[in-house]
Amino acid sequence: MMPEGGLRRRQHSSLRAWDDVGMLKGLSVQTVLQAGIPLVRNISELPQSDYGRGGLSHITIAGSVLHGMKEVEIWLQTFSPGSRTPIHRHSCEEVFVVLKGSGTIFLASNSHEKQPGKPQEYPIFSNSTFHIPMNDVHQVWNTNENEDLQVLVVISRPPVKVFIYEDWSMPHTAAKLKFPYYWDEDCFYSPKDEL
Amino acid sequence: MMPEGGLRRRQHSSLRAWDDVGMLKGLSVQTVLQAGIPLVRNISELPQSDYGRGGLSHITIAGSVLHGMKEVEIWLQTFSPGSRTPIHRHSCEEVFVVLKGSGTIFLASNSHEKQPGKPQEYPIFSNSTFHIPMNDVHQVWNTNENEDLQVLVVISRPPVKVFIYEDWSMPHTAAKLKFPYYWDEDCFYSPKDEL
Repeated sequence: MMPEGGLRRRQHSSLRAWDDVGMLKGLSVQTVLQAGIPLVRNISELPQSDYGRGGLSHITIAGSVLHGMKEVEIWLQTFSPGSRTPIHRHSCEEVFVVLKGSGTIFLASNSHEKQPGKPQEYPIFSNSTFHIPMNDVHQVWNTNENEDLQVLVVISRPPVKVFIYEDWSMPHTAAKLKFPYYWDEDCFYSPKDEL
Repeated sequence: MMPEGGLRRRQHSSLRAWDDVGMLKGLSVQTVLQAGIPLVRNISELPQSDYGRGGLSHITIAGSVLHGMKEVEIWLQTFSPGSRTPIHRHSCEEVFVVLKGSGTIFLASNSHEKQPGKPQEYPIFSNSTFHIPMNDVHQVWNTNENEDLQVLVVISRPPVKVFIYEDWSMPHTAAKLKFPYYWDEDCFYSPKDEL
């Protein structure tokens, strides 16, 4: 089911990190590495991490590196109260389904200007959906102080190539490309120095 | 946010059908038709129908016809006990996230044969995920007699072009293309005869 080479070897340090945070419950690392990924996977047993972003829990439900996806990728992300994505854009389609909690989507649709400018704000809530027009600069923010915000995220053209802005007045041309992105980076094969 | 022409006019008969089954709660037909689709949408207010398929409830969360999606499309589907998809294939990626219930995915991966042949069976369950390799013949079946099966479905390359098989021994070349598919068909613009 999985294209050959779709699962890259992970560095030992990454594997240890998985175990450290109690991931891979019931699913041995050797199973993943040697026998491939099962067709039907229990989402609660999939590896999750904050990938260095405070307040985030990210799970790749179906991804280009781990599962050989070519055209779509799906993430499950949980934002603790107050946490948020960077201000960013990407040239792929993106759809959100809000599973739990509430928050705000900040969206600057004026891509004909030199910089994003002041974004519009839209409240998002449990059982809502929204999509981000391609290349529009946006930020998802858990503005609810009392509850986690959990979203299912679908993107096209994986792996994602993210341009990050320091603020809404930064010129589009100054936004910094982050690629591979945190969760891909962690999965890409890095050769081990045997010497 | 929505490309011009992304929302086609619906036939009056379709609109009446929406109302008949109690859909469009709180969202007037005129709002949808004249003012476009809001960025953030309440999924429980989106139109749903069985599209003539007994036991099915289908909601297009983000679609090519209604929302101008070009690369991904997302559906929320609920199968009553015993109901199922046709045996079918499509040349797009497809990922399922099981939100509620349980069932069975039947999958014939031998696309080098003349017909699908006996499929493999995989149990699916709440909070599981699986994806269908492109062009593999498959069928999702709510084999749980006591509970609805609810899945979130993501496809690439919308709108979906489905080839339907009468049974697992039907040659691939005899499978019948259904396009537009039920839910797209209902949304595509049909000119009204004014005479």
